[in-house]
Amino acid sequence: MARRRTVDEHAGRIAALVGPSLARHETEVLPLAGTLGRVTSEPVTTAGPLPPFRNAQMDGYAARSADVRRTPVVLPVDGVVPAAASAAQTLEEGHLLKVMTGAPVPEGADCVVPVEQTAEEDGGVRILRPVEPGAFVREAGSDALPGTVVVPAHTHLAPRHIAAAAAAGVAEVVVRRRPRVAVIATGAEVVPPGAPLALGQVHDVNGVTLAALAQEAGAEVALVDLTPDDPAAFEQALLRAVGAADLVLTAGGVSKGDYEVVRQVLEPLGADVTEIAMQPGGPQGFASVRGVPVVCLPGNPVSAQVSFTVFLRPLLRGAVGLPLIPAVPMPLAAALHSPKGKRQWLRGVVKAEGVYPVGGAGSHLVVAMAGADVLIDVPAETDFVGAGSTVSVLPL
Amino acid sequence: MARRRTVDEHAGRIAALVGPSLARHETEVLPLAGTLGRVTSEPVTTAGPLPPFRNAQMDGYAARSADVRRTPVVLPVDGVVPAAASAAQTLEEGHLLKVMTGAPVPEGADCVVPVEQTAEEDGGVRILRPVEPGAFVREAGSDALPGTVVVPAHTHLAPRHIAAAAAAGVAEVVVRRRPRVAVIATGAEVVPPGAPLALGQVHDVNGVTLAALAQEAGAEVALVDLTPDDPAAFEQALLRAVGAADLVLTAGGVSKGDYEVVRQVLEPLGADVTEIAMQPGGPQGFASVRGVPVVCLPGNPVSAQVSFTVFLRPLLRGAVGLPLIPAVPMPLAAALHSPKGKRQWLRGVVKAEGVYPVGGAGSHLVVAMAGADVLIDVPAETDFVGAGSTVSVLPL
Repeated sequence: MARRRTVDEHAGRIAALVGPSLARHETEVLPLAGTLGRVTSEPVTTAGPLPPFRNAQMDGYAARSADVRRTPVVLPVDGVVPAAASAAQTLEEGHLLKVMTGAPVPEGADCVVPVEQTAEEDGGVRILRPVEPGAFVREAGSDALPGTVVVPAHTHLAPRHIAAAAAAGVAEVVVRRRPRVAVIATGAEVVPPGAPLALGQVHDVNGVTLAALAQEAGAEVALVDLTPDDPAAFEQALLRAVGAADLVLTAGGVSKGDYEVVRQVLEPLGADVTEIAMQPGGPQGFASVRGVPVVCLPGNPVSAQVSFTVFLRPLLRGAVGLPLIPAVPMPLAAALHSPKGKRQWLRGVVKAEGVYPVGGAGSHLVVAMAGADVLIDVPAETDFVGAGSTVSVLPL
Repeated sequence: MARRRTVDEHAGRIAALVGPSLARHETEVLPLAGTLGRVTSEPVTTAGPLPPFRNAQMDGYAARSADVRRTPVVLPVDGVVPAAASAAQTLEEGHLLKVMTGAPVPEGADCVVPVEQTAEEDGGVRILRPVEPGAFVREAGSDALPGTVVVPAHTHLAPRHIAAAAAAGVAEVVVRRRPRVAVIATGAEVVPPGAPLALGQVHDVNGVTLAALAQEAGAEVALVDLTPDDPAAFEQALLRAVGAADLVLTAGGVSKGDYEVVRQVLEPLGADVTEIAMQPGGPQGFASVRGVPVVCLPGNPVSAQVSFTVFLRPLLRGAVGLPLIPAVPMPLAAALHSPKGKRQWLRGVVKAEGVYPVGGAGSHLVVAMAGADVLIDVPAETDFVGAGSTVSVLPL
């Protein structure tokens, strides 16, 4: 038998095919309130200084520091500067103006005396302690000068970035468009969720699951289709999908059986379908249709999930600026046996003492996989790993 | 001066007020495809067995193991069982039926001979190696028996849970309704995003930022309102908010100034507004209006973000089943000074060697905060922490 392609080789080919399509970085303009979790395409800058004007850091009295150097002293209060002052005020020598936190500090004043350091008196306010020049005054531009980048390009927008953009008065932000992913699940035996089952039929798992995986990896799901093992129907779905998406995922139809619709339609178009030396996984492939990458995943729901996680999750997350989810070393809590020749991705559950393999190797064990939280990566040449050994696990 | 309330005391009061409102756990029914990231209210069970019928694990030939115990042997092939068989077939003794992966294994057959272990011949197929009873057959119910819980209640739904529910044929799932949060930002000086600024005016930061923080913590944003320092306008916004939300957040209007609209309206309704011994933070409070908790955050955008993160984020994330974000110990990479008497939450940036304080303590430094990734928690009684000491940091 021809040597099977390794996981790393296949990952490299998928990345070479899919990467450029995801890297196209089309942009869209969104109102600031709709940008949480999106990635900036351009830096956000502030046109004016932040804060926009010199303002009080405390509720208290704007003063000339020369007047409040020797204390106690009683000074007359000329009025109040409210938070929203509509015109510049000027503080006369030897006087005070009351200010609220955030209010403009009037011309002439160079400090704010906190209200806690004062006492009201007939004819004015007693300043109890001396105040330094500049005290409790926030200078205009002390957070950011005009033209400052307040959120760099390629930032994954968290609330604090939205806060900085809002402070800069920005109403709309240019963000990277999410990659659009289309999913086509195939199989004559597959029926939609909730439909009754005849003998030999199963409910669709791949359509809804690959859509959820793509969404979780930061993509927008352009469409989910379900086609029987009929080349014409699959071809129709495929053309719809490549017209709507930056990446098309198919599930099923790439095995050695007699009704392998994905292979039948895509191999004449140059698809590369081959056996990958991994389990679950098996035969899978890729093609480019009208310039859009099509990745052909196995039809088995566990194999499809594992293959997505290994081959596509890093590419999508990378493209949208989400942090990658790296494999981590971890002690194996219970010994495991593994068939030689294929790299195994066993489902595992992490506990304090390490990771336990769960649910067996069968790639039909969808419920067992729901109870797992990691994939245990067992190299192809390994047939036994003892308890306490370190294994590499990939968080789900 | 009266003793200021500590962070832990205030957190306890907020939890006592807000917790029951968020714990009400109203539910909604969603189509499975819309449930990613939601939390199940009820377990999802499978009515039938999974897999629903005995099926082939490989492409190959269904056989009676008694017929393939001694090999090589050539047996006639009676036809093909396609993946979607519409009626039960029976395998005659001494015969084979071709099967594709996932197809029903016919009555009488008790094993599948993988196609790789066969060769086609005139008059039939040669079986090259003996096959054990049960080999390459997935029994009905081997993943889950009828009535099995395939996704427990209170599960934060990841794609693999959606896969298990889909396999069970479930079209709709009962999930916890997201808590609805309303935000009211106050301040006569505050103008909406993008509006031009007159002297003394600033752009709204709190409305859009608190909405983003609530959304990030798993809540649904019911409304965001912006009111001037006018009690009638604030009261109107408040009534709209308590009618629409499970939790109302206000920003500003709780300080010691003359125009403190939140205090003016809420204190007659029993609000508890007090100085918290934290920085940024200062005066803040809470009330219950028509049975809906109202949490009054400071108006300063950095203080509002820090207070939300300390007091509300854990409650919201806990209520929606998102993992909590615990404080973690970390070496301090550069010495810091801190005023005594108030617990400080300094903005910090994490690098390989530890956490660096950034941007200074000023609570107007919104842009500086955007560049931080953690809050450094400095106890009230501490005025200096040396480089290399361990500090507690709260990831943003």
